Amino acid sequence: MQANVFVPGHITGFFEIFLYDDPLYSGSRGCGVVLDKGVITRAEVMESDRLEIETFLNGTKTSCDVSKFAVYELLKNERKKYRIKIFHELQVPMMQGFGTSGAGALGAVLALNTALKLDLSLNQCAAIAHKSEVINQTGLGDIIAQVNGGIVMRIFPGPPGIGVIDKIPYDGYVVVLILGSGIKTKKVLSDYKMRKKINEVGGECMKLLLKKPTVDNFLRLSQFFSFNTGLITRKAKRVIEELQKYKIRASMVMLGNAIFSITEEPENLSELGYKCIIAKIN
Amino acid sequence: MQANVFVPGHITGFFEIFLYDDPLYSGSRGCGVVLDKGVITRAEVMESDRLEIETFLNGTKTSCDVSKFAVYELLKNERKKYRIKIFHELQVPMMQGFGTSGAGALGAVLALNTALKLDLSLNQCAAIAHKSEVINQTGLGDIIAQVNGGIVMRIFPGPPGIGVIDKIPYDGYVVVLILGSGIKTKKVLSDYKMRKKINEVGGECMKLLLKKPTVDNFLRLSQFFSFNTGLITRKAKRVIEELQKYKIRASMVMLGNAIFSITEEPENLSELGYKCIIAKIN
Repeated sequence: MQANVFVPGHITGFFEIFLYDDPLYSGSRGCGVVLDKGVITRAEVMESDRLEIETFLNGTKTSCDVSKFAVYELLKNERKKYRIKIFHELQVPMMQGFGTSGAGALGAVLALNTALKLDLSLNQCAAIAHKSEVINQTGLGDIIAQVNGGIVMRIFPGPPGIGVIDKIPYDGYVVVLILGSGIKTKKVLSDYKMRKKINEVGGECMKLLLKKPTVDNFLRLSQFFSFNTGLITRKAKRVIEELQKYKIRASMVMLGNAIFSITEEPENLSELGYKCIIAKIN
Repeated sequence: MQANVFVPGHITGFFEIFLYDDPLYSGSRGCGVVLDKGVITRAEVMESDRLEIETFLNGTKTSCDVSKFAVYELLKNERKKYRIKIFHELQVPMMQGFGTSGAGALGAVLALNTALKLDLSLNQCAAIAHKSEVINQTGLGDIIAQVNGGIVMRIFPGPPGIGVIDKIPYDGYVVVLILGSGIKTKKVLSDYKMRKKINEVGGECMKLLLKKPTVDNFLRLSQFFSFNTGLITRKAKRVIEELQKYKIRASMVMLGNAIFSITEEPENLSELGYKCIIAKIN
């Protein structure tokens, strides 16, 4: 038995953190954009006498903790046992704020739901992936955005069905310039002082974006967020200022060593000499 | 100033009606499927000394009341006046349960939102289209489905942001067989006895679908709904029974003189000699 699923990547511009005892009511508010590039997941299943899960990243056996946790959660009440192989093919880099952990976990759950005919709804699958993200501290708002697509304003935290979203209507491209090696989301999310600062600035940004939900305002507020939380790196700041000279508004990817812009003319950014990912808004 | 927008078509299998004083809290629960065919809308705008709206259907000047109502609603607080032309190009037939009225109204609002830089969010635009549908009695649940896509279970009524949805995860085709000329939604929705029957049977279907959210169960419950509400026509019944001989499950489109099925093998239905629309689930 096998099944394939694509889950898109998602880039966050700014956010606010909500952590409670129940991971399903935890998550984030904020705004981000969903790409037409992401993670393709294939699940292969054979019946077995015990539950065994192996995970592969771009063909190499790798421990994908968030996907594994989600699969255990999905199958915890199943009586039959399986030998499961999960293959993730990444179209975007890891640890650069593309929400690959969430895309992988959701892909694994959806692919197994199909392969094993578990008959769960999309929200039920997404809830499991969201829970795995929150508990593993790898993401807080990617799942609901990835399920919905577009430029997603997360106005109430949680997975789809609990969380509430709105969107900025816009058709265009996301361009991401990768500036160096990745950032561990966990390190930032577990620092109490940083969380406090993030929530203070992120809450203000959310309020202002809802008053004027436009792409330009989103990029402006994302910049304000990255500068005022202190999350901005020196290099990101330099490149954002360089782009401003060309009248291109960009901001730092939360959380990646990368900057992003939203535009109808992606070629203006791709010609600057940085490692560049261009995607259609999905 | 001008802008183009595509809004997909949506077919309902079964539903429950919720009507209150506030159209934004009115709507329907139920389940339906969103197509990759729908309505393309172009808005053309010129400044003027008074508000003038003209609507066109496939190139011919036609009074599109639902779109017009939505445009008046959208612009009621605008100080500037405009001469507006709304052009709808239909990829699916009218009055056959494809939700073309909703697709047109939402398309008109979204296109004007872009053309006039009104800076409304997607939910704000959708709320206006939903309101126009409810007040004109042309639809109750199409807008939230069209905004979300997929096989949409509407578990709480209303437009996006108020209504709540879940989805049946499935990748495949919708096939619609058109059996004759269309049906007026308004006539059915305004009959008190029919509404009572619809809610009784529709409520039961919703409960059963949520317990087992699969495509086959959706089609089975849709059939049960159309037969037990008495909405089924003699011809639809005959064709559904004919398809059953080929082990194809189908149900009547709510509300159209048409039947639909969801399948990975659309050619099995297209070869039966009926006027046929094949679309990818969107």
